[in-house]
Amino acid sequence: MRANFRLQRLFIDAPLQAGAAIAADPDQFNYLANVLRMEDGAEVLLFNGRDGEWLAHVTFPTRKKIVLVAQELTRAQTPMPDLHYLFAPLKVGRMDYMVQKAVEMGAGVMQPVMTQHVQGKITSMERLRANVTEAAEQCGVISVPDLRDPKKLRDVLDHWDPTRHLLFCDEGAETNNPLPALQALKGQPVALLIGPEGGFSEEERQHLRSLAFVTAIPLGPRILRADTAAVAAMALVQAMLGDWD
Amino acid sequence: MRANFRLQRLFIDAPLQAGAAIAADPDQFNYLANVLRMEDGAEVLLFNGRDGEWLAHVTFPTRKKIVLVAQELTRAQTPMPDLHYLFAPLKVGRMDYMVQKAVEMGAGVMQPVMTQHVQGKITSMERLRANVTEAAEQCGVISVPDLRDPKKLRDVLDHWDPTRHLLFCDEGAETNNPLPALQALKGQPVALLIGPEGGFSEEERQHLRSLAFVTAIPLGPRILRADTAAVAAMALVQAMLGDWD
Repeated sequence: MRANFRLQRLFIDAPLQAGAAIAADPDQFNYLANVLRMEDGAEVLLFNGRDGEWLAHVTFPTRKKIVLVAQELTRAQTPMPDLHYLFAPLKVGRMDYMVQKAVEMGAGVMQPVMTQHVQGKITSMERLRANVTEAAEQCGVISVPDLRDPKKLRDVLDHWDPTRHLLFCDEGAETNNPLPALQALKGQPVALLIGPEGGFSEEERQHLRSLAFVTAIPLGPRILRADTAAVAAMALVQAMLGDWD
Repeated sequence: MRANFRLQRLFIDAPLQAGAAIAADPDQFNYLANVLRMEDGAEVLLFNGRDGEWLAHVTFPTRKKIVLVAQELTRAQTPMPDLHYLFAPLKVGRMDYMVQKAVEMGAGVMQPVMTQHVQGKITSMERLRANVTEAAEQCGVISVPDLRDPKKLRDVLDHWDPTRHLLFCDEGAETNNPLPALQALKGQPVALLIGPEGGFSEEERQHLRSLAFVTAIPLGPRILRADTAAVAAMALVQAMLGDWD
């Protein structure tokens, strides 16, 4: 069933079932009461990434408090999309966008990785998580991506489950079109690695190319910024191998 | 031949041939002399969208003046990519990114279109053109996209050359995957239309769907922001139909 895109969607970190009553936190209160000017009885959609999506209504036990009461299930919980997304940090503004877009494009697991040429630094995982939940609210997903704590790229590769194929974007490829490589991977779980703005170091590229579970994919004849490459690559992966089918 | 990505690339609006001497404008002087701290003899790459890409060196006839002297052709002029890109304005910051990404993704013609639900307004075409040339410098293109003045969507459609197929992204499609529709268009010139953040009006959607040269394409099961949809759609179009082959 397609998402209802007219009602406001809120991520709630609490169990959801018929009759569940959840107090809105201060940010949510401000948004519902002051920004959206909702009144008693207004309808919203709630989800927590576990119990599906629920139609709920807004109640004001007092003027300064909102309790959201879940009424009926609108969409059953769906499993997390199977796409794993590994990304080197970018400068803060661009990284906010990149995280939001990864949610829109259906990443299931989001793993920040520290590489040799990384330019940005993740100073606030809380900020990234807020970006994830806000993007999830806006793009209609019921399952919320699992944003993991940063790790060194080398450690992630050393502990990799080889049944999941890892794609990384490589400018040095002999062809420009990734479709044949993707076609060859149909039916296999995949992960996508997007490097930092400065690219991978030569050492990192050699190491990646030496691993049996890694495939380098080109992304056309032009240079792409990291955040452009991320969306472009995810669109191709999802259309060829993922949940766009 | 692949672009040389180590040298600084500059867009110059003047004819280029061996020995051509071009005075750097004030912004270019500041960038070369003060930001990059280039000295006499430093090498750069010049292009003007017409005469190919040239290796040039920096000369300082005086301390406050730079003249760039073109030496040899590094890459021959390539024709403009055949992808036409129509887009409704977004709010300024997002639109800057969208314009840059359209250049990275290989748009040849960029046509802003005014729609019913448009949220942004193009207050400065000069700013957009600067975004285009800067993105062209950074992503290695030799042909610079033709950014046209804004028009009403209806006017653009009324004067459309029907030999070019127009794709627009539609959330109401029955399937989620655009690849079959794109496969059916192989060999034909195409254009891509990205609507405003608020989407097309019902009237606009009905009109678009009524036109023989238009195909609606879905972009997966989630809602995409306009700038996300733009990159995702362009990646699929270029990989299936465009210059990624």
